[in-house]
Amino acid sequence: MLKCFFDPDGILVVGASDRGVGANLLGNVCKGYGGRIYPVNPRHETLGGLPCYPAVAEVPDPCDLALYLAPARLLPETIDACAARGVRGMIIESAGFAEAGEAELQHQAVARARRHGMRLWGPNCMGLIDAGRRHVFSFLGDPWEKTLLPGNISLVVQSGMLSAGFLTMILEEGNMHVRTLCSIGNRCDVDENDLLPALMDDDDTAVIGCYLESFHDGRRFLEACRKSPKPVVLLNGGRSPAGAAAALSHTASLGGDHAVAAGALRQGGVIEATDPHEFMDLLRGLATLRPWRGDGGAAIVTFSGAGGILTADLLAEAGVPLARPGAQTLRQLGELYPPWMPASHPADIWPAIEKDGAATVYPAAVRTLLDDPGTGALILHCLANRLDPALADELAGLARTRRVPVVAWLTGNGERRTRFRAALEMAGIPVFTEMGRGVRVLESLYRLRERRVTCDCNPGYKIPVPLVTEV
Amino acid sequence: MLKCFFDPDGILVVGASDRGVGANLLGNVCKGYGGRIYPVNPRHETLGGLPCYPAVAEVPDPCDLALYLAPARLLPETIDACAARGVRGMIIESAGFAEAGEAELQHQAVARARRHGMRLWGPNCMGLIDAGRRHVFSFLGDPWEKTLLPGNISLVVQSGMLSAGFLTMILEEGNMHVRTLCSIGNRCDVDENDLLPALMDDDDTAVIGCYLESFHDGRRFLEACRKSPKPVVLLNGGRSPAGAAAALSHTASLGGDHAVAAGALRQGGVIEATDPHEFMDLLRGLATLRPWRGDGGAAIVTFSGAGGILTADLLAEAGVPLARPGAQTLRQLGELYPPWMPASHPADIWPAIEKDGAATVYPAAVRTLLDDPGTGALILHCLANRLDPALADELAGLARTRRVPVVAWLTGNGERRTRFRAALEMAGIPVFTEMGRGVRVLESLYRLRERRVTCDCNPGYKIPVPLVTEV
Repeated sequence: MLKCFFDPDGILVVGASDRGVGANLLGNVCKGYGGRIYPVNPRHETLGGLPCYPAVAEVPDPCDLALYLAPARLLPETIDACAARGVRGMIIESAGFAEAGEAELQHQAVARARRHGMRLWGPNCMGLIDAGRRHVFSFLGDPWEKTLLPGNISLVVQSGMLSAGFLTMILEEGNMHVRTLCSIGNRCDVDENDLLPALMDDDDTAVIGCYLESFHDGRRFLEACRKSPKPVVLLNGGRSPAGAAAALSHTASLGGDHAVAAGALRQGGVIEATDPHEFMDLLRGLATLRPWRGDGGAAIVTFSGAGGILTADLLAEAGVPLARPGAQTLRQLGELYPPWMPASHPADIWPAIEKDGAATVYPAAVRTLLDDPGTGALILHCLANRLDPALADELAGLARTRRVPVVAWLTGNGERRTRFRAALEMAGIPVFTEMGRGVRVLESLYRLRERRVTCDCNPGYKIPVPLVTEV
Repeated sequence: MLKCFFDPDGILVVGASDRGVGANLLGNVCKGYGGRIYPVNPRHETLGGLPCYPAVAEVPDPCDLALYLAPARLLPETIDACAARGVRGMIIESAGFAEAGEAELQHQAVARARRHGMRLWGPNCMGLIDAGRRHVFSFLGDPWEKTLLPGNISLVVQSGMLSAGFLTMILEEGNMHVRTLCSIGNRCDVDENDLLPALMDDDDTAVIGCYLESFHDGRRFLEACRKSPKPVVLLNGGRSPAGAAAALSHTASLGGDHAVAAGALRQGGVIEATDPHEFMDLLRGLATLRPWRGDGGAAIVTFSGAGGILTADLLAEAGVPLARPGAQTLRQLGELYPPWMPASHPADIWPAIEKDGAATVYPAAVRTLLDDPGTGALILHCLANRLDPALADELAGLARTRRVPVVAWLTGNGERRTRFRAALEMAGIPVFTEMGRGVRVLESLYRLRERRVTCDCNPGYKIPVPLVTEV
């Protein structure tokens, strides 16, 4: 049913142009889509080296998909013309519909499309990006040819910022990769309930993120999440009355009472974020990590007493049990320490590092804790200035063979920090700038364990390219 | 009473050396302290170009202060020798006391010092850093001569990471500046209740941060905070039973039941952080911002509909009212927008920027909202790639003349981001990477307003130097 959007046979680009967003859209389609492309614009004879048609009716061949970036008021008649050309789905990227008080125009478009059995995507959206197929059906203005590499995170969002803006950031940071990005704007027809099942069935999607400003059908959304074999992370805009009022003028979404929804979402296994960066960090962590190991608790290796204490506090507040290493594990840790220091957990290994250096002590402490069957997950504090990036592969290797999810909280400065971060992430250990964020990711993993949801459809997933820059 | 620590006449450096931490300590003292310095170490005749004495008793002149970095077991007898040399305070930076099971040794030291009327600072700490006087009475190993500039944030911490580690980060990032850093470790004698009143009286301190693993006398701490004319931000390690157990082996602190404490702290006007980065961000924000204006709400200028909605949600969840701009303000905002877009708040100015460019639209929207008397504070979303750093001074000037606290959430990439961030911070607008963090800072400011605590002892405080790098 959604094949016309994801794998179309022939595309009309209505509102293609030689500059601005109309040029971006056509250019993006041409760069990645291998099928037939027909730009439509009465003011041009050719565009991007292709013949350009003055109207949809003049296009010589039938097409599955139409991308629409022409003025809003011309949409209804264009729907009829597209139907006559065999179009089965339209992605409407233009604004000026319900979000701008033109609800009637939007209703009329939906009614016409229904009559033709055609599906509408949008309006007021950034379209569809499929990194696997290299389909960029979007007026996105940034270059993506070198940085858009197929990842395992799929997104359904009602926001330009969370599609174009964050995608740009994601591509530049290079430490998370998108599989499919569905920007659905006002979602007059195709909605989260159409897309979620498709993404849940997609073998290349490991985790799904949704930015929604309301739920088209909350019951269906919850039902889908409850059955989902993959984690679903939700950023819900319009949780508060003030936010809901603003959502009305953004995507014409009518927000509900979030206090009621929150409990149901949690019960349905949905992982909720409240901040866009938290949303990205959760997706990034869950896309990389293997499932919680057994019934263990979270172990901590730290460079600082305060770091261990604060992390233990955050874990307790999140309802995640702390690991309780056995006597043998503590004895082995104790052998790393200077004699005056008793081994305990969280394992503050600074005194051991002062004695023998990080190169041997750090991996030895990690190995010791990973070998303890009571360790279900591990949090590493890394002080970049004291650790060699070459250590990253060793640490990731230990995590892989012991099948334990490992997250890192990185402190330190400058170039060494950037290099160590890149090394860890390329090896498959997600790195967080804030201590609390790594804990939040493990909390999600722990809850998924209770629900027996696996995010291991891509075990040992590695970041596919070297990091470009750190922002 | 604390003069012997902050403004001593003559310093003994017991355990000075020609390498390692003993060399760091002596070197740091020599770099900034203008008075008499006497290294003590039986294995050297001179150190750092100064005559070195084999024992405290051999030092020819009386001294106010002794810094101690010799083995723990030698402390009690050294206390007696120091007392004989007129020493009134000792900063004990060595470890190996109560935190390592040697509680008896620590008790004994305190008892001896009491007998002599001498105060003990530490043990197991990083000492005292006074950026105003350029006193670095600490074995800190990083160079600080160029980057330690006097700021207006004073800290009392029970952690090496939160003294040395974070100080290094603070110095490198260059966007917050410390006035006094008191690292008190096991705080066997001098504690938060001695230091807080001194810092509250200090004209150059605008905001106080505490990292504590327990309270020596919770009632006195709360009393001091309740009366404080300056904001107090607390990061409390050992809030949970697991964290408290770890705190026992870190600084021999006996944590209480935080669930009980949290309410009292909040009532006492203490601003609580749970993550070290949140702690730093709160301090940095409060050190720079002027007080909340009148009874207004928080206004938002954003580049994205979703940004405005999510910020409104976070404000609502924090109990901070959203501004309700008057009809005239909305009319003025409306004049910036394209005709199809009705003006509303949060002010999503992206369509206006697409029409007329950010250089005129952005400051016009900011001015319009600041001129509305219902605006008590303002949150700016800045997309660095679309804004010229030259705009920063204009924005900060508007905030200054209208006497409104303004925080920024910055998105965007690379060099432009780094430059825009530096420009805003140098102009006095604190910048946060996470949307929720700016909201958290405004929440604190709003609560302080209700308590009539001012953080305006340094109005229009500006970051004193250009930012070095962004981490």
